[in-house]
Amino acid sequence: MKLYDDAIAPTPRRVRMFLAEKGLDIPRVAVTIGKGEHLAEAYTTRVPSRRVPALELDDGTVICESVAICRYIEALHPEPNLFGSTPLEQARIDMWQRRMEFELLLPFANAFRHSHPKMAALENQVPAYAATQKQLAEQRLAMLEGDLARNPFIAGDRFSIADITAFTTLAFFPRLVGIAIGEQVPHVKQWFDRIAARPSAGA
Amino acid sequence: MKLYDDAIAPTPRRVRMFLAEKGLDIPRVAVTIGKGEHLAEAYTTRVPSRRVPALELDDGTVICESVAICRYIEALHPEPNLFGSTPLEQARIDMWQRRMEFELLLPFANAFRHSHPKMAALENQVPAYAATQKQLAEQRLAMLEGDLARNPFIAGDRFSIADITAFTTLAFFPRLVGIAIGEQVPHVKQWFDRIAARPSAGA
Repeated sequence: MKLYDDAIAPTPRRVRMFLAEKGLDIPRVAVTIGKGEHLAEAYTTRVPSRRVPALELDDGTVICESVAICRYIEALHPEPNLFGSTPLEQARIDMWQRRMEFELLLPFANAFRHSHPKMAALENQVPAYAATQKQLAEQRLAMLEGDLARNPFIAGDRFSIADITAFTTLAFFPRLVGIAIGEQVPHVKQWFDRIAARPSAGA
Repeated sequence: MKLYDDAIAPTPRRVRMFLAEKGLDIPRVAVTIGKGEHLAEAYTTRVPSRRVPALELDDGTVICESVAICRYIEALHPEPNLFGSTPLEQARIDMWQRRMEFELLLPFANAFRHSHPKMAALENQVPAYAATQKQLAEQRLAMLEGDLARNPFIAGDRFSIADITAFTTLAFFPRLVGIAIGEQVPHVKQWFDRIAARPSAGA
């Protein structure tokens, strides 16, 4: 088993952080997106969808999509549990994981892709769309402040894959789109600092 | 247990179709998005995120996000299996389900939201963005044609939740954004007609 990984992008970091929480070490192969290595034939023959990260099994089977990779790892290594133990907890964590992707990650990522000079060559940028997405990201951050005032973690009372999705999003995008995680969202900031202090945040 | 449901929107249809494949009948409460019923206090006190569909359990617990709802149903009623039986099959189906959401549903939905007159009151429409998303939807449809030339179903050799996501997307959005599922994508059309012939497609 080996993991195709990029050191900078937030999505590969989700898988690294997940593996670190599990105490697992899978051999990694660097695929540097910034250098276009994910588009080179050496990679696309293995991973036709060109996505990073990708998990390659010993028989050559490739799994893409960070959450699908993490779910596979969880099935093989159930503890510590990060997707939920009972059907209800699994549903709640899945719900929050998805909300963090669709409501937090997407507006931040879209604001970045459609505004940042570094993305100009990769994205058909629409500045007016970036502006609406930045506004949406700020609204979602305010909603998250309410959620984290009620609960210590994204999906409730314990750490889960939903925290990894939200943390890797907020560790990467805010400064790139000019949004601060500061005193306007104190509970988000406290939560962020708590997650950043976990050893897995260094992965 | 009851399901808050809208008869028109494609996302609630995913859950209805999933339940029909399972042979399950859960009491439904109509929440008509077109009439703004999801924003009324009667609903938002139960479902603060205002999302439809939502599954309410007998103790008042609410699960939102169609895939989280389906995953919960699958845990309670494992057969017929729609999320995969082994860790590897579960990972592959999850990967395809997510690809259909991020690569097919999102561009179609964005093209619709940012261009259709009916969405003007609900969305801060950016026509230039709608145009790029329509182009992306067409590209993804061409990619799907290649996938369905190789496999009879989205995730491989059998029907799964990934087919439900792709089918409900393509049954709703294409005509609204001026894209045909026609002879330019014959394998997509054959697959679509095959899924449309399943009794669950009437749900």
